[in-house]
Amino acid sequence: MFIVEGIKSVLEFIQSSYAVSEIYSTDSVVAKLGKIPQNIKFNTVSDKDFGRISTLRTPQGVLALAHIPTSEPIALQALKGKYSLALDGVQDPGNLGTIIRTAEWFGIKRLLCSHDTADAYNPKVVQASMGSLARTEIHYLDLHTFLNEVTVPVYGAVLDGTSLYETAFEAEGIILLGNEGNGIRKENLKRIQHPVTIPRVGQAESLNVAISAALFCSEVSRTQVK
Amino acid sequence: MFIVEGIKSVLEFIQSSYAVSEIYSTDSVVAKLGKIPQNIKFNTVSDKDFGRISTLRTPQGVLALAHIPTSEPIALQALKGKYSLALDGVQDPGNLGTIIRTAEWFGIKRLLCSHDTADAYNPKVVQASMGSLARTEIHYLDLHTFLNEVTVPVYGAVLDGTSLYETAFEAEGIILLGNEGNGIRKENLKRIQHPVTIPRVGQAESLNVAISAALFCSEVSRTQVK
Repeated sequence: MFIVEGIKSVLEFIQSSYAVSEIYSTDSVVAKLGKIPQNIKFNTVSDKDFGRISTLRTPQGVLALAHIPTSEPIALQALKGKYSLALDGVQDPGNLGTIIRTAEWFGIKRLLCSHDTADAYNPKVVQASMGSLARTEIHYLDLHTFLNEVTVPVYGAVLDGTSLYETAFEAEGIILLGNEGNGIRKENLKRIQHPVTIPRVGQAESLNVAISAALFCSEVSRTQVK
Repeated sequence: MFIVEGIKSVLEFIQSSYAVSEIYSTDSVVAKLGKIPQNIKFNTVSDKDFGRISTLRTPQGVLALAHIPTSEPIALQALKGKYSLALDGVQDPGNLGTIIRTAEWFGIKRLLCSHDTADAYNPKVVQASMGSLARTEIHYLDLHTFLNEVTVPVYGAVLDGTSLYETAFEAEGIILLGNEGNGIRKENLKRIQHPVTIPRVGQAESLNVAISAALFCSEVSRTQVK
């Protein structure tokens, strides 16, 4: 199970394919929730009790418990005709949540995560995703084995590739991003068909991984052959 | 004064226009610092003492004290021929640091901040900027009055503007971004000549302000008339 907090996020998860099993709400928030489906157990709690169960510094008065989906093996066919993001060891929950939020803004709703990527159901990730997690499919898998099998093109964020602005993004593909400090694992670098670099003008040493993800998603969205 | 931590950042600030007055270092890091200019007071401290003065969870063994530059009024002429970022109430230190790092990557080295924007010399901002603050000019000012006077075009990040991808960025300008929750203040919205929107494909309600800043800086960098 995992925790979802805030009115907007709780409502989005109720409407999603995620299975919400329980809601905890303070009296003052109940009216704002509207009609809750009968299969969800509803609990009213005092402000004081809510403050104790909330993971937030400023509790918003409503919290849901949802089931973590069982990780089913993903069919290679499911990757066709669209873009997915692959994360090779992204560690920071805030980065992961921001990546989910941003990718979903650009219509990318599938994340393929190496087993050492942060847990997408960590409350900090759920919070930073601002509800977009509800519309996103997350797969934890052996990324190296998986990248060996995929048939869609793999675009990798590296330091010595083709300019992002000059990359011809096909109608489908995987955007591969690496760990905050170490980038993409050596073994996975070999799986990249299109090494891509975000052109630098100034002297900053690197970009934050969520920023890089956003720039890739935006460029795919802007240029992709439809 | 403000605190800068980590070998790379400390060295970058020593080489910058910022005035570094003191360095605190553990024995194990001294050798990695190279020659320190004589006008900087150098203090060697024990690991234990360093742990007590560091603001980081994993102290890196070296810390500098630098002077916060006196905020001089900026000449309107200085805005000509380049891009500046204007921040209208960005609150989160992590966002501000990431904005400084990302803008500098794309060659934008001037920030015009409303007085209620987060303090750029807060240790969290300095850390998140990853050394790019050393190469960036920060001005805190009455943003509304300032935007009334500027002669370069103002591009504002709003929800109902022209597509970012269809905006013709001129050779100079200001990119205006608003507060995380409330966006740009009403009074400042009126100062925007070019309202610009990041096109949305999915259903995410909004983008993080540092992500928006990155997408604007990238698009200016990609398309700008040189």
